Amino acid sequence: MSLHPAVAAVRLAVRRELARAAGSAGRAGGSDQPRVLVACSGGADSLALLSATVFEGHKLGWRVIGVTVDHGLQEGSGAQAARVVEQMAALGCDETASARVRVEVAGEGIEAAARRARYDVLEQMRAHFGAELVLLGHTRDDQAETVLLGLTRGSGGRSLAGMRRAFDHYARPLLDVSRDDTVTACQVEGLEIWDDPHNEDLGFTRVRVRRLVLPLLEEELGPGVAATLARTADQLRDDVEALDELAAGAAAVLVTADGVDLAGLRAEPRAIASRVLRAAAVDAGAIDAELFHVHVGALLDLATGRVRGEVQLPGHLTAYVADGRLAFRRTTAG
Amino acid sequence: MSLHPAVAAVRLAVRRELARAAGSAGRAGGSDQPRVLVACSGGADSLALLSATVFEGHKLGWRVIGVTVDHGLQEGSGAQAARVVEQMAALGCDETASARVRVEVAGEGIEAAARRARYDVLEQMRAHFGAELVLLGHTRDDQAETVLLGLTRGSGGRSLAGMRRAFDHYARPLLDVSRDDTVTACQVEGLEIWDDPHNEDLGFTRVRVRRLVLPLLEEELGPGVAATLARTADQLRDDVEALDELAAGAAAVLVTADGVDLAGLRAEPRAIASRVLRAAAVDAGAIDAELFHVHVGALLDLATGRVRGEVQLPGHLTAYVADGRLAFRRTTAG
Repeated sequence: MSLHPAVAAVRLAVRRELARAAGSAGRAGGSDQPRVLVACSGGADSLALLSATVFEGHKLGWRVIGVTVDHGLQEGSGAQAARVVEQMAALGCDETASARVRVEVAGEGIEAAARRARYDVLEQMRAHFGAELVLLGHTRDDQAETVLLGLTRGSGGRSLAGMRRAFDHYARPLLDVSRDDTVTACQVEGLEIWDDPHNEDLGFTRVRVRRLVLPLLEEELGPGVAATLARTADQLRDDVEALDELAAGAAAVLVTADGVDLAGLRAEPRAIASRVLRAAAVDAGAIDAELFHVHVGALLDLATGRVRGEVQLPGHLTAYVADGRLAFRRTTAG
Repeated sequence: MSLHPAVAAVRLAVRRELARAAGSAGRAGGSDQPRVLVACSGGADSLALLSATVFEGHKLGWRVIGVTVDHGLQEGSGAQAARVVEQMAALGCDETASARVRVEVAGEGIEAAARRARYDVLEQMRAHFGAELVLLGHTRDDQAETVLLGLTRGSGGRSLAGMRRAFDHYARPLLDVSRDDTVTACQVEGLEIWDDPHNEDLGFTRVRVRRLVLPLLEEELGPGVAATLARTADQLRDDVEALDELAAGAAAVLVTADGVDLAGLRAEPRAIASRVLRAAAVDAGAIDAELFHVHVGALLDLATGRVRGEVQLPGHLTAYVADGRLAFRRTTAG
């Protein structure tokens, strides 16, 4: 019997990631069996990911640990977590665990709070199990949604660049795999998929993007929009990383405790000069999350001499020019 | 009577552009009266632009020339062009002209062909009238549509960066002004707006973006999406220009007739290395328009040693590695 293409796609993605992780410097040499943690909600994406990781990981000598996080946000979430633990054990995980987290919503919205709580507990479990790799089940469709959400924030390349393929010990091997493929893979393998009721709640912006916006884009602009958005994210991430790195290098030379050297700054392209100014302002005490495009534009105008005077920044900070430098001082009342 | 905000917004945008143009190096000093050409279709955007340019331009001593282009694509287009000429004269233009162009659709689609024909004839008229500046009426909404269209092409920051604010002798002063404001400005000033039937034809992708996609985005993701998309374009344009410039500098050092110096290339971030490889391939004869992300990715894999062998490129070109360089040769049959 030949392998179903959807199962093959998920397995290939996981195999590549495990090879990358085994080849990377992060692996301490030695006789210890490498360990991979898979975060599994019981949904199609993470279930397909777990199943493929058991299959590919065991072939390559990895110990596979399935973990699920109970956010405690829905009635019966404890029972659901217990079901996922059973499912993970039945799928052949070497170890399983579930952890209950307390999601404290503090201004940032329930989605952001749940995400933060989830990563905190995943990191604890990673340390506990001594795993060098944690796999997350985000698909190409998740990436497309993230790009569209970023587009509406207007914070430029950074928010359009979507989710990273890998960071620290974490990796998202399915970013090139469609959600449809993960659903099909589960069906082909006879895995019972849990449908998170949150995924149907149109009160969440992400759910509206998934259910309403992306389908319309596919209909009006042609199929393959999700794949195109994900590809765009990859390219923009390269761009943003290069510019951030170049700006960090420029800032190391141009920024001191006395402010920013303007002659040097003016020799830099706008994309780098604006990043240097932004970083200098944050270092001086401006509030990162409240420092918008309009503030950085005003700093640029001041730095290039297009505008004279001072610029007020969030965090009670004033930017001014003196002796060929752009400097900052605390704004004092009265 | 106070000035209506919509009229004020259009005039402010034009005043800034005229000041920028007057201050730029492009103006030959001397006693000649500066001349500005305004491209006007008779639609709200360009009509509001023309009216504001007559008002602001005359105050600042510019000679204002209104021109309209008859694409000959619709029945009665000649009569419509004549009406616009009358309207432009009545609005106070110092000179007016209309030009009929022949749109030849050759593979690129009717919108692209009409655009090319329009710029060709605008450039002829600019030379004829000796104008140093040509103003185009694209608004913030046009920019948002362009960004969304670019997003669906997946060619990265370049296609997301939208329309340039200025290039050569051309400028788009209304990129921060909404289409609604241009319509209101025309109504307040009693100008009769021509509604291009093409703007209602859902056969055009751009019209579907305008009529269906953007309204849904505004509804589901919150108002202000058009403004956000336009702001995103500005930031991405800075990023793309900086990286293109840096890549051109790197290419000047790394690329010779013998190919690309790989040791030097590997020291560059991916965003720059990929641009250098792309430019080198096009220089060597690869077909620019057919060179996709996947080709550049394969060249990067080859250059970094991740993959061995050769890469086939559109334009019958083969890339290979020899003596520490990535080189190209014509692919010969047999």
